[in-house]
Amino acid sequence: MTRTGLSRSTVNQRIDALLQGALIVPSGEQAPTRGRPAEKFGFNRGRGVLLVADLGATGMRVALCDLAGEILSERDVVVDVAEGPVVVLERIQQEFVGLLAAAKLKRSAVLGIGLDVPGPVDSASGRVVSPPIMNGWDGFDIPGWFGSRYGCPVLVEKDVNAMAWGEQHLAHPDVADLLMLKVGTGVGGGLVSGGHIFRGADGAAGDIGHLHVDLPAAGPEPECRCGNTGCVEAYAGGWALLRDLADGGADVRTVDDVVTLIRSGDLAAVRLARRAGRALGEGIAHAVNLFNPRVIVVGGQLAHVEEQLFAGIREMVYRRSLPLATRNLQIVRSHLDRRAGLIGLALLLADTIFAPDQVDAMVSVNG
Amino acid sequence: MTRTGLSRSTVNQRIDALLQGALIVPSGEQAPTRGRPAEKFGFNRGRGVLLVADLGATGMRVALCDLAGEILSERDVVVDVAEGPVVVLERIQQEFVGLLAAAKLKRSAVLGIGLDVPGPVDSASGRVVSPPIMNGWDGFDIPGWFGSRYGCPVLVEKDVNAMAWGEQHLAHPDVADLLMLKVGTGVGGGLVSGGHIFRGADGAAGDIGHLHVDLPAAGPEPECRCGNTGCVEAYAGGWALLRDLADGGADVRTVDDVVTLIRSGDLAAVRLARRAGRALGEGIAHAVNLFNPRVIVVGGQLAHVEEQLFAGIREMVYRRSLPLATRNLQIVRSHLDRRAGLIGLALLLADTIFAPDQVDAMVSVNG
Repeated sequence: MTRTGLSRSTVNQRIDALLQGALIVPSGEQAPTRGRPAEKFGFNRGRGVLLVADLGATGMRVALCDLAGEILSERDVVVDVAEGPVVVLERIQQEFVGLLAAAKLKRSAVLGIGLDVPGPVDSASGRVVSPPIMNGWDGFDIPGWFGSRYGCPVLVEKDVNAMAWGEQHLAHPDVADLLMLKVGTGVGGGLVSGGHIFRGADGAAGDIGHLHVDLPAAGPEPECRCGNTGCVEAYAGGWALLRDLADGGADVRTVDDVVTLIRSGDLAAVRLARRAGRALGEGIAHAVNLFNPRVIVVGGQLAHVEEQLFAGIREMVYRRSLPLATRNLQIVRSHLDRRAGLIGLALLLADTIFAPDQVDAMVSVNG
Repeated sequence: MTRTGLSRSTVNQRIDALLQGALIVPSGEQAPTRGRPAEKFGFNRGRGVLLVADLGATGMRVALCDLAGEILSERDVVVDVAEGPVVVLERIQQEFVGLLAAAKLKRSAVLGIGLDVPGPVDSASGRVVSPPIMNGWDGFDIPGWFGSRYGCPVLVEKDVNAMAWGEQHLAHPDVADLLMLKVGTGVGGGLVSGGHIFRGADGAAGDIGHLHVDLPAAGPEPECRCGNTGCVEAYAGGWALLRDLADGGADVRTVDDVVTLIRSGDLAAVRLARRAGRALGEGIAHAVNLFNPRVIVVGGQLAHVEEQLFAGIREMVYRRSLPLATRNLQIVRSHLDRRAGLIGLALLLADTIFAPDQVDAMVSVNG
């Protein structure tokens, strides 16, 4: 009860509803107590599934999960988010159909759908808002699109928020203030604080990628795709490293190529990675002063060059942030790695289904 | 019910307890409803009072308040926080005794005591932690000191958090995400989000004063009292303006002198004020990207040079923050001004007394 913050009677009502729907089954064990015995319940894994999609700038990962948030099967798909919502959502839907068919499940087994996107989401409507890199998505009704096809709750979340939720719940359950950093094609931040995702007034909170940083001796400020100069992302985003390495004559086409080149020890690439680390570190130092997190988790493709990136991050954070905020601070690599978003979505969805009024993220039930 | 988030039965239990203690009285009006009539209750203003003290670096303001958070009487007192807790708390206690005597009230009429301080507070213990400008206060048990004298709840809060709470409740009740900025001797920030004060893992959140900023063409980075260079506070804190004006030969001894000089139109002072505005603006731009507030309230003594300060603030915020986070953003001057901290403390205390388990700030009940 302490865990949920719900009263005993509310929990009992919910358990009864779930037992009726066979979503959960008593797991047998019980402890002596007054009133209704404090039974343990397990998810009825056979009863229903969740479909989730983690949408990046140039690819996505889709998965079929059980109600405990465990991934049953998953697929990687190449897709360009800039093709717009109609093309991309149809592609996701094809994959969902494929995942269900492979598992011999009907559409009616789907109890919830979750999608995360590389841009801010209006939590009241589940619509993407003013996404800098998602042409044509502004205001598109994603929950309505899936809701009409499945008739189940549909949840839309900013990618790094879903990742933060997954990391906090599985890797750092005792940490109340966790900041997640995604360093992939772009750079984004998501904060879980006191059991809630911190979204801000417009769903735009955590935007570490466009903090302006001042790197001594780094030359003229690089241009950012947002139109400004000197943003964290203009030094540390995968797109920026790709640009800078290509400008230097390196044969790189994707962010994965960048990661490979840095790991190979290429001098120019390592130098850029360390500069990226310092830019991230200056941005993170700002976030440490303002959010005062206990743990910072770094994920995304660039987290795979941990060694080169983390030196710069730690250098700037310890130089710039006050001791009180850093003395118990941990900076760690993502535990769930490429699955953080999928798992976070599945856990958020499970919360939505089991306690709809406790979840402030968008949920739409149609049909 | 919606407002409190409490169940009807919990609210009824609390109302019964408060009626028994005569803390509230039915105010007569009622609306038709099922079950217990939805009566309106008013605070029984004669039943008890609150004592609050807003402690600054070189002065404080103390007040006697009723249970609705209204100030009944108040006093300004010159005191140097660096004299340490024993001297300063004795001074506060003298003032409290004076306020009670003037109101012909006994000590037993005091239902709660609130103190805010210019430094981070550990919300679990109510102790000040690693305060940069509060020599001798680290870990001092303020709640214990007052609790043993009054036997009532004692609440200790960071000054700008109390101000944020007061502003949000009285001036911006419909705003869920409010960032308060105090620009006085130092520079601090406090955030109210979704009905809670955002404190971070160590009570150190909102530290805008020590964000590192990069002002083009501002010359070499000024030194900050934290040991770093180029902090927001090193440009915009009252102490920094005092230093810079004195270095230029101006006859200024207090932050109030600085305000007077800027308002007089003195060219050097106005130039420094505009530079301070740009430094604050760069810091606020970071806070806008990370917190995404709906309203930013600027208070503290320097808010009295609004005209010169706000131009620089707006310039940098609109240059640096992304459109999504600024299109509905308001930047306004403090409504409660010098009383923001006192009123915030009184409102926080009232919440503590009426719903103790809803308040996560420190409360100690002794005797």
